[in-house]
Amino acid sequence: MTRKPALAVVGATGAVGAVMLQILSQHADVWGDIRLVASRRSAGRKLAVRGEETEVVALSEDALTGVDVALFLVPDEVSARWAPIAAAKGAVVVDNSAAFRMDPEVPLVVPEVNPHAVRVRPRGIVASPHCTTLAMLPAVGALHAEFGLRELVVSSYQAVSGAGRDAVALLRAQLSVVAGTELGAGPGDVRRAVGDDLGPFAAPLALNVVPWSGTLEEGGWSSEELGLRAETRKILGLPGLRVAATFVRVPVITTHSLAVHARFENEVTVERAHEILATSPGVVLYDDPEAGDFPTPADVVGTDPTWVGRVRRAPDDECALDLFVCGDNLRKGAALNSAQIAEAVALEIGPGAGDRRGLGSGQGPGSA
Amino acid sequence: MTRKPALAVVGATGAVGAVMLQILSQHADVWGDIRLVASRRSAGRKLAVRGEETEVVALSEDALTGVDVALFLVPDEVSARWAPIAAAKGAVVVDNSAAFRMDPEVPLVVPEVNPHAVRVRPRGIVASPHCTTLAMLPAVGALHAEFGLRELVVSSYQAVSGAGRDAVALLRAQLSVVAGTELGAGPGDVRRAVGDDLGPFAAPLALNVVPWSGTLEEGGWSSEELGLRAETRKILGLPGLRVAATFVRVPVITTHSLAVHARFENEVTVERAHEILATSPGVVLYDDPEAGDFPTPADVVGTDPTWVGRVRRAPDDECALDLFVCGDNLRKGAALNSAQIAEAVALEIGPGAGDRRGLGSGQGPGSA
Repeated sequence: MTRKPALAVVGATGAVGAVMLQILSQHADVWGDIRLVASRRSAGRKLAVRGEETEVVALSEDALTGVDVALFLVPDEVSARWAPIAAAKGAVVVDNSAAFRMDPEVPLVVPEVNPHAVRVRPRGIVASPHCTTLAMLPAVGALHAEFGLRELVVSSYQAVSGAGRDAVALLRAQLSVVAGTELGAGPGDVRRAVGDDLGPFAAPLALNVVPWSGTLEEGGWSSEELGLRAETRKILGLPGLRVAATFVRVPVITTHSLAVHARFENEVTVERAHEILATSPGVVLYDDPEAGDFPTPADVVGTDPTWVGRVRRAPDDECALDLFVCGDNLRKGAALNSAQIAEAVALEIGPGAGDRRGLGSGQGPGSA
Repeated sequence: MTRKPALAVVGATGAVGAVMLQILSQHADVWGDIRLVASRRSAGRKLAVRGEETEVVALSEDALTGVDVALFLVPDEVSARWAPIAAAKGAVVVDNSAAFRMDPEVPLVVPEVNPHAVRVRPRGIVASPHCTTLAMLPAVGALHAEFGLRELVVSSYQAVSGAGRDAVALLRAQLSVVAGTELGAGPGDVRRAVGDDLGPFAAPLALNVVPWSGTLEEGGWSSEELGLRAETRKILGLPGLRVAATFVRVPVITTHSLAVHARFENEVTVERAHEILATSPGVVLYDDPEAGDFPTPADVVGTDPTWVGRVRRAPDDECALDLFVCGDNLRKGAALNSAQIAEAVALEIGPGAGDRRGLGSGQGPGSA
């Protein structure tokens, strides 16, 4: 008997975990056992996956034993502690957190862009990029393959759900305060109305935009802005790529948007860019300015691909394109990309992985 | 007897007109008679200016007779028709519309940046720039004077009030529909909930951002995106300046924000940029990342200056700065800049202008 690989979903009860369970129920089923793991507080809850009610178990060494692939959908510090434990027990870890993204011994993978990278994982860990990087990379990676990327200037329009379920509840509460009022017309009136609890944000988000996300790094940059630069360089294999980004939160629930100015080595045309984007996996080209067609978060939310519109050649630079991209930060930006990586690993280690484990080989697939 | 110059405010009953009447009531009073002019529909209404109830008169040739300075705060087509009539009758026209901005015989003026330009006006018309240009130029112009500007990449976060009072009412109505719901989490759910009336926008704005503002121009560019380029070139006297902009509407009532990547001829430092911005007229530097200080629309609305924060040197380009700027699109972005231009003209033509006119000289100050 050949058994399919066993999967653990660590962080099954969170916002990204919920989307992951949907995806696992919808995608072609490559998994044997699926174990749902969460904090001790959530243990004992039952969640539906592949149509079956499955009991959530508490994160522990036992919970990570006998697993072929472990999806980590948890905060950085939880991944930092537990992912190496899972890897030591033989699982290939697919980590959605920032804990290992810049570790030189951990590949950082966007399956549409650098699928080969998943196979070289000396620590038994594969990292999935930040949601903002993921919103952009399927499109930018495809254009790079044709034109040769030299520089990116990026501005983000980031949804709140990437900051967690409490952040969504906070924005909804703020919207209820301002709706039906004349607020937003006087200095500070929204701030006074919504009160002091701003959650993870530095200012109110209802009727506002907030140019900060992440922690403070040198030179006034935020960790997320520098993260986009570092991650894009690593994924595209371009250590000298010039990247400048300004990250801004906007009052949108889910789906990040980015305005991208991309300068290439070679001359670009909108026609050729359209051909590339229309035929790239994971990308939907939605760009007909005469018909008023371009992506917006309200239409993209809940869908898998990166949507691209407003494709223009820079007026003063025949080697630069300006684009507007939208990607669901909970799907491609988190759960979907991690699921795609895990499925690629499942395909690589094959349906017999469960048997090999069952025989007690002690050889994790990550050591291959 | 010397009389102060007579002013006509054409479009006194609109959104920008309302702010103008506030400004005229607050600023040092350089005006003699102030005549309020609007469409026939609004004639007869009484509005307060300088503490006096003043009756609105209908736009006509008579209404523009005996005026030294005429502020036009009306749509492009109304300015295109009536501003030359006012100028022919001897008034200096200060026009807030797009009708004359790119006319080579009409100066385009930001008083903090190119005040000298106001004096050369062969058509008797001075134009005020678009609100998005104005949100950025006091800061960018000051940095240009020191470092020498070569290129701009700009993304906008534009408020709705620039699209008129109906646009504000529409956003408020949309917010009332989505508040207290779970909308914004599924594809198209906001669009279905708010219905078909999107006003001047191509998509819903509640819980959304919309990457379009203006009309379609060649190459997929919008008129406003190309307008920022043309206006910035004209105001700074840099006909070859490279500019690429993506304009995006956001669910904010008033105050435009812009993420600006500015490349200069010379090396920049954040320290020197701070010194320049802190001492430039019309600019407030609000940039302390350790304290979490940066401008947002909710705090800037209702104030006069351009607020600047998030000043960073590009990580890969010692000649480039990244900034986040906010400016009230109804004040500096419209009424205030036009008032400043008008006041500069009043100073130039002097307090005797009314007397000269009273003597029937027939010489408009614009012909000087």
